[in-house]
Amino acid sequence: MGLSKRIDAAVERAIAMGRAGPAPERLSGALHYACTPGGARIRPTILTSVALACGDDRPSITDAASASLELVHCASLVHDDLPCFDDADVRRGKPSVHRAYSEPLAVLTGDSLIVLAFNVLSRAAGDTPERALALIAVLSRQTGMPHGICAGQGWESEAQIDLSAYHRAKTGALFIAATQMGALAAGQEAEPWTELGARIGEAFQVADDLRDALFDEQALGKPAGQDDLHGRPNAVSMLGVDGAMKRLSDILSGAIASIPSCPGEAQLAQMVRMYADRLTPSAEVLRARA
Amino acid sequence: MGLSKRIDAAVERAIAMGRAGPAPERLSGALHYACTPGGARIRPTILTSVALACGDDRPSITDAASASLELVHCASLVHDDLPCFDDADVRRGKPSVHRAYSEPLAVLTGDSLIVLAFNVLSRAAGDTPERALALIAVLSRQTGMPHGICAGQGWESEAQIDLSAYHRAKTGALFIAATQMGALAAGQEAEPWTELGARIGEAFQVADDLRDALFDEQALGKPAGQDDLHGRPNAVSMLGVDGAMKRLSDILSGAIASIPSCPGEAQLAQMVRMYADRLTPSAEVLRARA
Repeated sequence: MGLSKRIDAAVERAIAMGRAGPAPERLSGALHYACTPGGARIRPTILTSVALACGDDRPSITDAASASLELVHCASLVHDDLPCFDDADVRRGKPSVHRAYSEPLAVLTGDSLIVLAFNVLSRAAGDTPERALALIAVLSRQTGMPHGICAGQGWESEAQIDLSAYHRAKTGALFIAATQMGALAAGQEAEPWTELGARIGEAFQVADDLRDALFDEQALGKPAGQDDLHGRPNAVSMLGVDGAMKRLSDILSGAIASIPSCPGEAQLAQMVRMYADRLTPSAEVLRARA
Repeated sequence: MGLSKRIDAAVERAIAMGRAGPAPERLSGALHYACTPGGARIRPTILTSVALACGDDRPSITDAASASLELVHCASLVHDDLPCFDDADVRRGKPSVHRAYSEPLAVLTGDSLIVLAFNVLSRAAGDTPERALALIAVLSRQTGMPHGICAGQGWESEAQIDLSAYHRAKTGALFIAATQMGALAAGQEAEPWTELGARIGEAFQVADDLRDALFDEQALGKPAGQDDLHGRPNAVSMLGVDGAMKRLSDILSGAIASIPSCPGEAQLAQMVRMYADRLTPSAEVLRARA
């Protein structure tokens, strides 16, 4: 099974656990709607790639970890889209959850997906409870307060933003979770994998800023220019398009250099390079803009 | 240290973990605001009482469990109060979180408290990782979909409500979590404690319906008559006040009869009787109404 199919199957299994038995049908439908069809599934792909590079000796724990991380990511998208945040009508090319199902169900969908993520991990322990616990510790740290994506979103309500804490929490946190959880799922230490996650997160943030500045709503599958609209800090407004492109390239080189020594080091470097190509706007797009 | 001080201290320690380091100040303040000063802390009191009845051989795990359960309960209150649900301006005699801090911060406060609950449990494992994992499994099951309080709230968006699933999930779930987690924290099996939790949950629901029908907003510390207003099923509208009083008394007798054999069985029965007295509207109130 290819990586992408493996991850989609893991996410589907996790969602099915949240919908078993006599559950309220609309909320049940909204859970599935919020997570499928998937976007690029970048975070679980990184997680699984790191686990594979480290030997992946307990594939069922790796799958639970990748699904739980994707559930939390999808939950954050559902809540970020709410009227009181981005008020986004569209996500991944279809109506956002609160538009398709209602605002109460969107709040509950986010809540349920977060909780389901921890349920999935708690049930995947098998004969290695320490691994499952370490995964729960990392996922909760990188999701909540004071270090995770909730904190990142929380910074947007402050008069004075700590920019470095903001970016690390808002975008970096779940990429750090991805690399750390990949290592933990395969029985390795989390810490040596922190820098790779942090750098991929930075690259992703800069690439997102570039896309937000260069593409329109149709190409993005979500409203464009949201950062400018909401006054959020943005690499393109700070460095310009060329400066941001240079920064992206530097960050990705640093990411590859940071990969810890492991059996699958070479393939992992190749995966990061592949993402780098995908993340970087093509010469064609840049010409069209000029 | 008395039970109530022990529980408040555990909750304060848990919240402090969510506010350490460079965190966004307003969200950080909202986490504390949402959980203090506490209400009756009924769920953690039941949890800790069951743990004590079972020997409480790892008090730090019991405290983590009781704090995590209270965090999830407080999170549910914050989200239930949101404009898209009950639109409640007041909670526990002070402005609700979205009124005091803003709607975005209320959404994030609920999210952060849920995540913090699992973080607290993951860090309390000590030398018994299986206990921490079992606690996480129970708390996530009784919080999320398809069995937990999220499902309970989700039923309110259905055209056809499965009443028994609705009540079990909406109110019963966290009481079942309380008794099961108390037993697990002390190294005992969860299952024999399910009925006690379910019956206390039923009693609490009926008592809440009675209070909602008999008291005004000032005495409740929250808007009265919410069930009638939102068309939610209610024991008083179905059975009348006298019928609901009789039902409450029957449920509490059943709760006491269901207590599994354990070293602290007698004290636990006494605690349930004490709650029964507190939950039951006094003759004075009933006379005043007549």
